[in-house]
Amino acid sequence: MRASDIIQKKRDARELTREEISFLIEGYTQGQIPDYQVSAWLMAVYWRGMSPGETSDLTEAMLRSGRVLDLSHLPAAKVDKHSTGGVGDKTSLVLAPVIAAAGICVPMISGRGLGHTGGTLDKLESIPGFNVRLSLGDFLRLLETVGAALIGQTEEIAPADKKLYALRDVTATVESIPLITSSILSKKLAEGIEGLVLDVKVGSGAFMKTLEDASRLADSLVTIGRRMGKRVVALLTAMEQPLGRAIGNSLEVAEANEVLQGRGPADLNAVCEELAGWMLVLGQRAKSLEEGKQQYRALIQSGAAAGKWREIIRAQGGDPIVVDNARCLPQARHQTEWRSPLAGYLTRLDAEKLGRAAMVLGAGRQRVEDPIDPAVGIILHKKLGAPVARDESLATVHYGDPARLEEARPLLEAALRFGSAPAAPAPLILRTLA
Amino acid sequence: MRASDIIQKKRDARELTREEISFLIEGYTQGQIPDYQVSAWLMAVYWRGMSPGETSDLTEAMLRSGRVLDLSHLPAAKVDKHSTGGVGDKTSLVLAPVIAAAGICVPMISGRGLGHTGGTLDKLESIPGFNVRLSLGDFLRLLETVGAALIGQTEEIAPADKKLYALRDVTATVESIPLITSSILSKKLAEGIEGLVLDVKVGSGAFMKTLEDASRLADSLVTIGRRMGKRVVALLTAMEQPLGRAIGNSLEVAEANEVLQGRGPADLNAVCEELAGWMLVLGQRAKSLEEGKQQYRALIQSGAAAGKWREIIRAQGGDPIVVDNARCLPQARHQTEWRSPLAGYLTRLDAEKLGRAAMVLGAGRQRVEDPIDPAVGIILHKKLGAPVARDESLATVHYGDPARLEEARPLLEAALRFGSAPAAPAPLILRTLA
Repeated sequence: MRASDIIQKKRDARELTREEISFLIEGYTQGQIPDYQVSAWLMAVYWRGMSPGETSDLTEAMLRSGRVLDLSHLPAAKVDKHSTGGVGDKTSLVLAPVIAAAGICVPMISGRGLGHTGGTLDKLESIPGFNVRLSLGDFLRLLETVGAALIGQTEEIAPADKKLYALRDVTATVESIPLITSSILSKKLAEGIEGLVLDVKVGSGAFMKTLEDASRLADSLVTIGRRMGKRVVALLTAMEQPLGRAIGNSLEVAEANEVLQGRGPADLNAVCEELAGWMLVLGQRAKSLEEGKQQYRALIQSGAAAGKWREIIRAQGGDPIVVDNARCLPQARHQTEWRSPLAGYLTRLDAEKLGRAAMVLGAGRQRVEDPIDPAVGIILHKKLGAPVARDESLATVHYGDPARLEEARPLLEAALRFGSAPAAPAPLILRTLA
Repeated sequence: MRASDIIQKKRDARELTREEISFLIEGYTQGQIPDYQVSAWLMAVYWRGMSPGETSDLTEAMLRSGRVLDLSHLPAAKVDKHSTGGVGDKTSLVLAPVIAAAGICVPMISGRGLGHTGGTLDKLESIPGFNVRLSLGDFLRLLETVGAALIGQTEEIAPADKKLYALRDVTATVESIPLITSSILSKKLAEGIEGLVLDVKVGSGAFMKTLEDASRLADSLVTIGRRMGKRVVALLTAMEQPLGRAIGNSLEVAEANEVLQGRGPADLNAVCEELAGWMLVLGQRAKSLEEGKQQYRALIQSGAAAGKWREIIRAQGGDPIVVDNARCLPQARHQTEWRSPLAGYLTRLDAEKLGRAAMVLGAGRQRVEDPIDPAVGIILHKKLGAPVARDESLATVHYGDPARLEEARPLLEAALRFGSAPAAPAPLILRTLA
């Protein structure tokens, strides 16, 4: 078998066999096939796409390039959630404790933020003492004792994905449905889960800008996940404006804590409820979405969810006092009100621009090696459709460096549009693939 | 400027600027842009193609990656010919002396054979003592004194092409019209020529199998060559069966010598006459193709062409006795007659299979590092359309190693088809772009 023949076959739109795909992925991971052949192949895949069979085989080969956790000795169902990334998306911090409180094991391996989107690991690390760099042994121990743990990607999980992703990033081959599918699923299925709920974000602040593109990705994720023997549901959720009111790491932790205590913003709570409902269905704790959503509300109301959250934080070295006292989270040096330049109804509150503004303040990274500031960010007081008076505060901006605030201002201003009447409220859950 | 943005732009079918193309080619040649980015870009070019403007800019950038000869101090016109490669194609050995004898300078830089096609350099090296590895200084000196010289590619000429070609070869990006165009023209235009006649071969033994593909390549070569200020003509010539009767290095030299003395096979002579006619037109020695063809015949008849050939051979260290005595060329140890298994008319004499048979005998290379045997090959006694009796000799096979002869036999047999009536003779010159 020769790599150049495999490239040619894909270039000519012929279907690759399982053997050819695993030859390529194994050879690349082990350094026998050079990156210049793999990058030409990636561009051919970008061009020609992949059949569901090829995409499963690719996912399988990437999954098998590293360690696959075996959680079969744990009696509980194992279910996780994955989001394609958005602005203000702190649902993982809510879902891990809620679902673990329901008796389902949640082995959550997450990523860091890049560009305008935040990352769960960065949010967790804003909790003083919280350790996301657990070994897989410690991770397994916490899953047994606590029922949930949240850690970062390790070298042992799907190393092929790490190498391929770095190559895609510099060869303009990121935006390919089969390559995205295999990247997401190879990492998630390495967690040893039985069920996976996918939150595919759609809109200006999301990777997928249109419902059509997002639907294609969701279809692919569900199809391939099921081919690989997993229970999979995908939701397409709105990401035109930020989810909830908080953008920025410690601000988002505080907002997640509010949701866990029944005091969170309505949109964020609704998305968490929907995702939790499906996780409970996949974990066979609920017979229907409605029953799952009822359980979610009950777990919040009883305090069980917040209690599990304190337990998770303590188990990972953090101080659970932050759940009840947001002042114990890192605080930005300065706050300022961002006042409305006009009166009218908010008809646009662009998630990507607000995400970029938060990044400029220090909440996110332009490049992977950039440091972040856990305390800075934005708390929105107005969301889409709200009537606003001139000079009324649109948001409180938490910042450390006045120069960065000045740099963020044009992005904030560009995020806004005003109208003379409120637009019809857009749905939060755009489509469900169940 | 970032290489990944240039890849993305081509991937999205947007036109690249001259600056972007030269950034990429310069960066790659100088080792600043890694091969894994260039190979993804090559696949995007394979997919999306290139406009004539982009292809000229690419050719220019590749040309400028190395030395471009300046022959402006020579009063003669400078004209060369390039063939896309075929089986039995020894026209360069005829054309260089004929055209030089007409007072046109022929600075011919040629390649080696690979696969089923032969290479001019290998043929020349079968002449005892003939040196194709001249420095550019010696090359220039011979152009001044003799009027023609035939040498191999040097490191100084279009180094970007050498690097790119090696990368294309292992990334399934060889068969791309703009990439082939820029590869051919960047090397040929580095010779400092004013006119170029292109012989684009069409058929089983050629790189381009169909008239349509060959026409696209010829159109591209003519368009880009002219955009770059050169006089360019392209001929599409038949390569279903070998050109002439000889396949194999010293056998082909002997056949070229026969053409130069007015005794060559009709098909080979006709193609040489047509190519020479156009070279004389481009070199402004003839006002029309017909006039050029007349001059060709006169230069052969007068002995001027053969005389110039002896002069070239002597100037490059070879023994000119081979022109008059073919027995002074390397002789194979064994000869055998290849006898017809059937009676009938030859309706197929597949050039690629015969080329492969000759390669197996040792006349060509499977891989660039393989050694070749200058003496082995095939002399066809029958060509397409000929009536053949059973057991009549189809060809004399010159070989050194009986095991290789056995290996070549199935290829020889697979090259044949017989019919009950002769097919209508196919034209040799299929199309002219003048």
